[in-house]
Amino acid sequence: MANIQVNKTAHPFDKTRFEALLNRRFFYAPAFEIYGGVAGLYDYGPPGSSLQSNIIAEWRKHFIVEEHMLEVDTTIMTPAPVFETSGHVARFADWMVKDLKTGEVLRADHLVKNVLEARLDGDKEARGLATAPPKEDDKKKKKKDKAKPTAVKLSDEVVTEYETILAKLDNYSGPELGELCRKHNIRNPDTDNEVSEPQQFNLMFASSIGPTGQHPGFLRPETAQGHFLNFSRLLEFNNDRIPFASAQIGRSFRNEISPRAGLLRVREFTMAEIEHYVDPEDKRHERFSEVRDVELDLLDRDTQASGSTKVTRMKIGDAVDKGIVANETLGYFLARIHLFLVKIGINPTRLRFRQHMANEMAHYATDCWDAEIQNSYGWTECVGCADRAAYDLSVHSAKTGHPLVVRQALKEPIITEKLVAEFDKKTFGKTFRKDAALIQNIVEGMDEAMLTKLQGELAQGSTTITSSDGREFKLTPDLLTIERKTFKQSIREFTPNVIEPSFGLGRILYALLEHSFWSREQDVERGVLSLPAVVAPTKVLIVPLSAKPEFDPLVREVSAKLRKAGIFSRVDDSNATIGKRYARNDELGTPFGLTIDFAYLTISSTFALAATQKRTMTLRERDTTGQLIGDIDEVIAIVTELVNGTIDWAEACRRLPAYDGVQAVE
Amino acid sequence: MANIQVNKTAHPFDKTRFEALLNRRFFYAPAFEIYGGVAGLYDYGPPGSSLQSNIIAEWRKHFIVEEHMLEVDTTIMTPAPVFETSGHVARFADWMVKDLKTGEVLRADHLVKNVLEARLDGDKEARGLATAPPKEDDKKKKKKDKAKPTAVKLSDEVVTEYETILAKLDNYSGPELGELCRKHNIRNPDTDNEVSEPQQFNLMFASSIGPTGQHPGFLRPETAQGHFLNFSRLLEFNNDRIPFASAQIGRSFRNEISPRAGLLRVREFTMAEIEHYVDPEDKRHERFSEVRDVELDLLDRDTQASGSTKVTRMKIGDAVDKGIVANETLGYFLARIHLFLVKIGINPTRLRFRQHMANEMAHYATDCWDAEIQNSYGWTECVGCADRAAYDLSVHSAKTGHPLVVRQALKEPIITEKLVAEFDKKTFGKTFRKDAALIQNIVEGMDEAMLTKLQGELAQGSTTITSSDGREFKLTPDLLTIERKTFKQSIREFTPNVIEPSFGLGRILYALLEHSFWSREQDVERGVLSLPAVVAPTKVLIVPLSAKPEFDPLVREVSAKLRKAGIFSRVDDSNATIGKRYARNDELGTPFGLTIDFAYLTISSTFALAATQKRTMTLRERDTTGQLIGDIDEVIAIVTELVNGTIDWAEACRRLPAYDGVQAVE
Repeated sequence: MANIQVNKTAHPFDKTRFEALLNRRFFYAPAFEIYGGVAGLYDYGPPGSSLQSNIIAEWRKHFIVEEHMLEVDTTIMTPAPVFETSGHVARFADWMVKDLKTGEVLRADHLVKNVLEARLDGDKEARGLATAPPKEDDKKKKKKDKAKPTAVKLSDEVVTEYETILAKLDNYSGPELGELCRKHNIRNPDTDNEVSEPQQFNLMFASSIGPTGQHPGFLRPETAQGHFLNFSRLLEFNNDRIPFASAQIGRSFRNEISPRAGLLRVREFTMAEIEHYVDPEDKRHERFSEVRDVELDLLDRDTQASGSTKVTRMKIGDAVDKGIVANETLGYFLARIHLFLVKIGINPTRLRFRQHMANEMAHYATDCWDAEIQNSYGWTECVGCADRAAYDLSVHSAKTGHPLVVRQALKEPIITEKLVAEFDKKTFGKTFRKDAALIQNIVEGMDEAMLTKLQGELAQGSTTITSSDGREFKLTPDLLTIERKTFKQSIREFTPNVIEPSFGLGRILYALLEHSFWSREQDVERGVLSLPAVVAPTKVLIVPLSAKPEFDPLVREVSAKLRKAGIFSRVDDSNATIGKRYARNDELGTPFGLTIDFAYLTISSTFALAATQKRTMTLRERDTTGQLIGDIDEVIAIVTELVNGTIDWAEACRRLPAYDGVQAVE
Repeated sequence: MANIQVNKTAHPFDKTRFEALLNRRFFYAPAFEIYGGVAGLYDYGPPGSSLQSNIIAEWRKHFIVEEHMLEVDTTIMTPAPVFETSGHVARFADWMVKDLKTGEVLRADHLVKNVLEARLDGDKEARGLATAPPKEDDKKKKKKDKAKPTAVKLSDEVVTEYETILAKLDNYSGPELGELCRKHNIRNPDTDNEVSEPQQFNLMFASSIGPTGQHPGFLRPETAQGHFLNFSRLLEFNNDRIPFASAQIGRSFRNEISPRAGLLRVREFTMAEIEHYVDPEDKRHERFSEVRDVELDLLDRDTQASGSTKVTRMKIGDAVDKGIVANETLGYFLARIHLFLVKIGINPTRLRFRQHMANEMAHYATDCWDAEIQNSYGWTECVGCADRAAYDLSVHSAKTGHPLVVRQALKEPIITEKLVAEFDKKTFGKTFRKDAALIQNIVEGMDEAMLTKLQGELAQGSTTITSSDGREFKLTPDLLTIERKTFKQSIREFTPNVIEPSFGLGRILYALLEHSFWSREQDVERGVLSLPAVVAPTKVLIVPLSAKPEFDPLVREVSAKLRKAGIFSRVDDSNATIGKRYARNDELGTPFGLTIDFAYLTISSTFALAATQKRTMTLRERDTTGQLIGDIDEVIAIVTELVNGTIDWAEACRRLPAYDGVQAVE
């Protein structure tokens, strides 16, 4: 029967097979491979490119279209002054250490993490708690990623200490990392040499704009600044109203110190960023009620500070109510991020939201949460969601003198009363000459209490004020009067705060591939990528039974009809067996297959199909390998619904008879 | 009536108004504007971003999906050895000159062009042939783009000489440009200072990869190399068959010397490139018959060499037959490029294909044509289409030792006969010891004639051969025999040729905006962008008659229904009048508007609508400003068909009654 139960966890995740699949099917590969490659640079092949653009298309729908965000496309090359103002030139850096003998450069926090984790693994092995050690070839592969564990038992205190360090790892400064290396004798695991004191290394790629060499520039390490610099134009485009959001999908660059971990740590990557501008005094979100009940696994900063990484499952509504998440808008986006990731196929049980700890968070941010996805490298930050407050807009505004503010007509003007000094300009000028401005400034700088005192003294006839350089000036009622006046403020001007969800698309794509990978119960060699149809590179594979030209018109007809229905299909008319062709497409994550076999049809005897009906084809589902049969147009209609997600496979099985004939040797 | 005639050429193209519109509606703006901007870097705002992504989506459909191309996404950052091999480090340069007093840097060919064109304009003015001089503010704007013309009459010979230079401009070398400057006294028009001899300036942005500073890298100036380096993987992905094409859409960078001309000459831009791999011995294209009759305006290299720029209108089939276009595959892509550009809204009468002249073309290319689009800056190259032969694959293969070749099983094996020497290895080795290999090499290096001679001498009993260092060796029949043998070659190995259509999307976008811009006959102030629905940033504007909350449910319903139909709409519920809101959207190029006005409906008396029918709305067409009225669902169905291009406005007018009520003050 078509609807067999699929056991996707029959085999444990096998990274070697997984990576071999991605490489063989050209999801991605090291860039410049024939030149020996460059660490941290990868090219996407056809299935990887399609998967990426499908994730982007879904992202656009889920965020930009759904919330009417304003999309922008700003430049990567950025003149230095922008990043001087934003703080990136001074602070966008990682701590690196050098191997004291070989000069090899390592990222300090990664070194500490790898060495301590290896020691904890070795301890587990020594205590007989470790899982089976990895196979030989796997070990070799891992050498570059991780310090090799050796079975050495540690004391219970040391284990606790290491675990605490690891839980707080993102919170250490450079000097603290250096101290950890000395205290725990952390060396370069590849050479066993000591390492230098941590030094800062700026992660921006530098270049120079124009022919004179006089205009330094950087490749942006995030797309955000391009939004902020255009804030005034965007606000105007939005009819001067907030809240609103801008969104951008584009390339960014970080000159990582020693990138490993494949697509998870690269030097060039595609990001999708949203900058949502809100009133700092009102961070509610009008659609928050729609997501209030979405449950998230939260790992807050207090839990981490206590040395634990235990998550709490909680409705986002409750998390905001309890003040765990700073405000509704931030909470709204956390929930929307969760919904997006699950929709494209991320396993929700391997997704958590981790709050930044105090030292980890940018100094200006008021709250920040990372969506972390578990994969074979551990828990990886894939989306950051920060409340950046008014920082960016304020610094650019201060630097350029261009106001990046919102001006709102107040519904109720604010009426205030206060004492003000009114000067008789002519007499005042004549009396004090060049000191007039100085004295006026002193008076205007007075607060309410001082002005009240001055008013009283003037009523007495005269008073004396003293300038900062000690000179005294006599004031009399003919020179100035102090009066109570009413002020009406009808415009409120403020710098909006920015909530920023920021997506690393390559990391999401990689985690999704890991979560989608499994092998058939009967056949560990047969890898399958169970990508949801919405992101699968190809939705439908058309498989003519043979490459004979008789099939061509029908293949073209089916192709054209699918294209008209908006479904992206591919034809595999190679000479491989049907079974091999399907296996190849299971590896490519193609959810549905259509076998065209109209001339030599074996019809399932349990269903009464008219003998004259020749225009049939079979429909195969990737995960179950179940097959159904039906009239060509009927099958196209069903597969269209399946791809669009309006019906599921169980429903398709109700609508079409199962096919259990033997078409070809699988 | 709805179907009034629209006169889009009532007003001549007004660049000042056009640019003001693009700026006001934030199609694009100088990047880092609040920091004073950087020449050649632009940011796209919401309508520009949408227009760009719609052009890209249409490009994907027209090329990638239609022809099953393999999409890739490769890195921008590229290690230096790649561009050393490709020739970019040595040759990807422009000629620049320096103002001898101010040091200002100018591109040499642009300087010659601007100065000579200004002199020709001045001559026309002096002869009374010039059109009205531009207005004052226009002149000021143009100063940066062009040398200012002054009314000086030139001799007829000089006019002819200048025109010939301009027609051949792309053909001059750097030293020749320097000579032109001296001969014609060409100076920096901004300062009237002399300029230096032309020097080469490499246009690639340089950077450094990794923390050690030892790995120079460049930002790619085109996406092509990323395709070529992955050729083997792509070929394998395509089941080892050619022809096939790879395609990539992505950012590229060129450090232009002194970028002017807005989006037409920028330092960072989005390209779409196709690399189509063909058998060098068979450049036919299987779908050429489909485009054979497409007519193009061709400007071939001979016409240009003769100093003329007169195009010839010709069917592409004839152009290939006559050898004007080198081969079918190149011709196929020229026609497909033409069809694409016209589909997105480029005016076909302002589109020509210009062939590269001998010196202009890369030395390895066999033929190259540029699709040039006429705009206010002149004729601008927007798409290049070159036959790059086997150059790129060959040089990378030679450099890396990685074969970038196709291996094809021959249908008929090639049988060859030739003489070969067979050695009695044992005796031979014993006889000559350490000289055995040397002697064997000498014999194996012999050609057919020498072997025939050797065979004859051996038949006589013995012979002597001499090594290059003068030693003699005696050969006898027991040591070797010379025999005629038959060889069968069943695999053909070759480096494919590459046909490359390469699109500058920003240039196409800009030209499209110019071609779409016009003003209403009655109202020059009212700019309209007549973008086709397929690329328009927003397809439908929803306009509730007022911002009253009663309209909200209906606005949401219409919005949701359009979204379900796949139509991207926006709501304008601002307080502006309906007329103002529509005018704003005419400027944004929104082709259709829906006015929701259900409560207070004035029904055209000429149509018998049931009085109870309240759920109606009006549909407005941008270019004619005609309005129709109908039931909400009916109007949604019609507007969906209009946007998808399955019906036109005339058909819509047949299906729905015209609305000529007065809704609001326009």
